[in-house]
Amino acid sequence: MGFFITFEGPDGSGKSTASTGVYEKLLENGYDAIYTREPGGIDISEQIRKVILDPKNISMDAKTEALLYAASRRQHLVEKIIPALNEGKIVICDRFIDSSLAYQGYARGLGIEEVYKINKFAIGDYLPMKTLFLNVDAKTGLDRISNRKNKDRLDQEELSFHNDVFDGYQKVIEMYKDRMIIIDATKSEEEVIDMCYQEVIKIVNG
Amino acid sequence: MGFFITFEGPDGSGKSTASTGVYEKLLENGYDAIYTREPGGIDISEQIRKVILDPKNISMDAKTEALLYAASRRQHLVEKIIPALNEGKIVICDRFIDSSLAYQGYARGLGIEEVYKINKFAIGDYLPMKTLFLNVDAKTGLDRISNRKNKDRLDQEELSFHNDVFDGYQKVIEMYKDRMIIIDATKSEEEVIDMCYQEVIKIVNG
Repeated sequence: MGFFITFEGPDGSGKSTASTGVYEKLLENGYDAIYTREPGGIDISEQIRKVILDPKNISMDAKTEALLYAASRRQHLVEKIIPALNEGKIVICDRFIDSSLAYQGYARGLGIEEVYKINKFAIGDYLPMKTLFLNVDAKTGLDRISNRKNKDRLDQEELSFHNDVFDGYQKVIEMYKDRMIIIDATKSEEEVIDMCYQEVIKIVNG
Repeated sequence: MGFFITFEGPDGSGKSTASTGVYEKLLENGYDAIYTREPGGIDISEQIRKVILDPKNISMDAKTEALLYAASRRQHLVEKIIPALNEGKIVICDRFIDSSLAYQGYARGLGIEEVYKINKFAIGDYLPMKTLFLNVDAKTGLDRISNRKNKDRLDQEELSFHNDVFDGYQKVIEMYKDRMIIIDATKSEEEVIDMCYQEVIKIVNG
């Protein structure tokens, strides 16, 4: 059995940079690791995400969205994460269940408990072993992504929604204190990658 | 508030013929009714069903499938069924939550209770008022559909799966005795439509 480690944080917190940076450092140091993020190249999950992110699907109900994320997550878990864990690998995953709790559960107002239930159905016993939370306020996060092109349906959300996501993450951190490791993501990229890498090494070396 | 009435039964039980027949009779007799079945022309639900039924998605996990059905159901409910009920209409719906309980919950082995939970998330308080169950054994049902062309992924299932669906429906009937009305679907089309119509009229006239 390998190590299942997820990265979480609001948009623009630098999750992708940090998680890929950590992954590369793991490989450089001879660890057997994979990097993934939903939909993770899984064909069925890609098809589901296409439905979620299509900007013309503006009539999508929040519960429909939450169920689709859970479905995509399930398939990605079964086809990619579980096989890698069974091979003893370190799995670095950019976003997982906590994103749904913060975004759909809190920011969309569906309720963290309710969204947890459908995600528990989806993931069974595969809760992440540890989660690195990249801590940055919503405004700083938004400033960082403001120059991105090809904005999808979610990037078009208002600042207030991103503030709600930030608050949602704080609730989630409170609920899963033992699993969460808070990283100060206002530091430089290099520093953030290094802090995250040190935490991952601690987990892997028990 | 209108009347939400669903039709259920194994493949080949004649659900579609009976439910459309009842719908037409309602209109002929001046009732304000709509006929629908998932995905019901709802664009987002159609997109989701395309993913579910694509014959090349053979690697689809049973839980992924159950979550996708729940997502498609949610959107169809929100965009089509609830607005019609709010206008006081009779909604005749071909398949709803009980199909997922019998197919995914029982026949796929996910557990009726587990599948009920995610569907309860999807439908909230919109359980059908009454459900007409078209009772026919799995073998007779399969014989009836054996000449269908363009078989989708589900039609390709083995007889044993259809037997499991039949058994699953018996459990569901047992669980929801008060909501279920059993119709003998081995009778002629005309007789089945007439029996169903009489039951619907009883519901509508309280």
